[in-house]
Amino acid sequence: MAGLRIHSVLVTGANRGIGLGLVQHFLGMPNPPQWVFASCRAPTGQRAQELQHLTSKHRNLVIIPLEVTDPASIKAAAARVGEHLGGSGLTLLINNAGTAKGNSLDNETLEDMTQIYTTNTIGPLLMGQAFLPLLKKAAQGSPGSALSCSRAAIINMSSYAGSITDVYVWEYGEVPSYRCSKAALNMLTKCQSLRYKEDGVLCVALHPGWVQTDMGSAGPHKPPLTVDESVRGMLKVLSSLSEKDTGTFLNWEGKIIPW
Amino acid sequence: MAGLRIHSVLVTGANRGIGLGLVQHFLGMPNPPQWVFASCRAPTGQRAQELQHLTSKHRNLVIIPLEVTDPASIKAAAARVGEHLGGSGLTLLINNAGTAKGNSLDNETLEDMTQIYTTNTIGPLLMGQAFLPLLKKAAQGSPGSALSCSRAAIINMSSYAGSITDVYVWEYGEVPSYRCSKAALNMLTKCQSLRYKEDGVLCVALHPGWVQTDMGSAGPHKPPLTVDESVRGMLKVLSSLSEKDTGTFLNWEGKIIPW
Repeated sequence: MAGLRIHSVLVTGANRGIGLGLVQHFLGMPNPPQWVFASCRAPTGQRAQELQHLTSKHRNLVIIPLEVTDPASIKAAAARVGEHLGGSGLTLLINNAGTAKGNSLDNETLEDMTQIYTTNTIGPLLMGQAFLPLLKKAAQGSPGSALSCSRAAIINMSSYAGSITDVYVWEYGEVPSYRCSKAALNMLTKCQSLRYKEDGVLCVALHPGWVQTDMGSAGPHKPPLTVDESVRGMLKVLSSLSEKDTGTFLNWEGKIIPW
Repeated sequence: MAGLRIHSVLVTGANRGIGLGLVQHFLGMPNPPQWVFASCRAPTGQRAQELQHLTSKHRNLVIIPLEVTDPASIKAAAARVGEHLGGSGLTLLINNAGTAKGNSLDNETLEDMTQIYTTNTIGPLLMGQAFLPLLKKAAQGSPGSALSCSRAAIINMSSYAGSITDVYVWEYGEVPSYRCSKAALNMLTKCQSLRYKEDGVLCVALHPGWVQTDMGSAGPHKPPLTVDESVRGMLKVLSSLSEKDTGTFLNWEGKIIPW
């Protein structure tokens, strides 16, 4: 991670699981970011206690209330982050908030398809739109013109389950609403990479691995990876990303996953 | 098309464009289906006049009112089709109904993302669920066990614009809502192919080409293909599909498109 020098980062869904792990690792870096924005839906709730505890120890950590399915909430969050940053930009936007339901193709519903797509796919689209001015500012303020995560980047937390080619762990769960939302998120990442390249913003889709979180552990099988292993791997991957990587789909070890 | 022997087919969005073209070609076959079900949202409306005109000439054509975003409407349509078929099954379900808006990444909205996903992705999922019993019946009543469009099949009308690998005609329109919905439809097709194989139902995603329809002609560029050319090509492709093709993404000429 020697190569990763981040002025500021926003992580969505930061109160638990991979989001919380990312926040903890950013705060623990030898050269931590000046600002770590950790967003979640209910910052004062029971489920955000660990995050609240961290704020008492880290003055560079700011909790931002955010519902990624609500355009007004996103707009308010962008304004709040902008105020903290003063005149500077946001280096990294990590669209980590996500949801899933263990449905099969037979019992999938209109409501679940809609809800999961809204959180997992539409949320990252709206977040990209709202935070683009701050990301552009970071890119413009950075020396050099090559894309990198130290300059400005959008990281979309995708899943190997969204690989149409491989339909990963189909035998463990059909989950069409989740798979469709992640395939669509991969397409969004590709679109963002094409559109935001001229703004100096790198965009990738990441598969964090199958991780021991509430979501990963919902089924009968124990996931092989700890949050720590996953996050450590992903941060190493982020530190290595360059121009040629924008618009790709990588796992926590940096391996390319087929669309 | 000598190989294509279809007992019955349902085409959604059949009142114009590619849907109407498909219906006309099915009716004009040397060995036409016993039943051609043509569904659209407003069968008695101005926009369904050509379809209404066809019913006066073809006794095997039945117009079915259907709103593919409404589970109750889908259920009613499946019941109505089942009544017409008596004890026999439905050979082909062609999920052709689709919609698009010429949005860019900058002006894309929550509402358009939701609406286009509901029609283009959730609709085909719900249609597959509702018509599966009739498709299974067709598969069971067919001699042999190999998958084919003459036995039982779901054809999802996708688009090369939904290829994450190629992001086809990006320079003509970013249309993230459309691209995300079609990438998700491709994932759905793959899921359906895995799940419905044991039921004897073949599933493919088709790119009809860039066709001179209301949708295809919405931009400033004239599409290269006529409806007739596209439909003729797709029917030839359907006639050639076998076991090995289920779960693939093909264009109107039968060429594989990368996910």
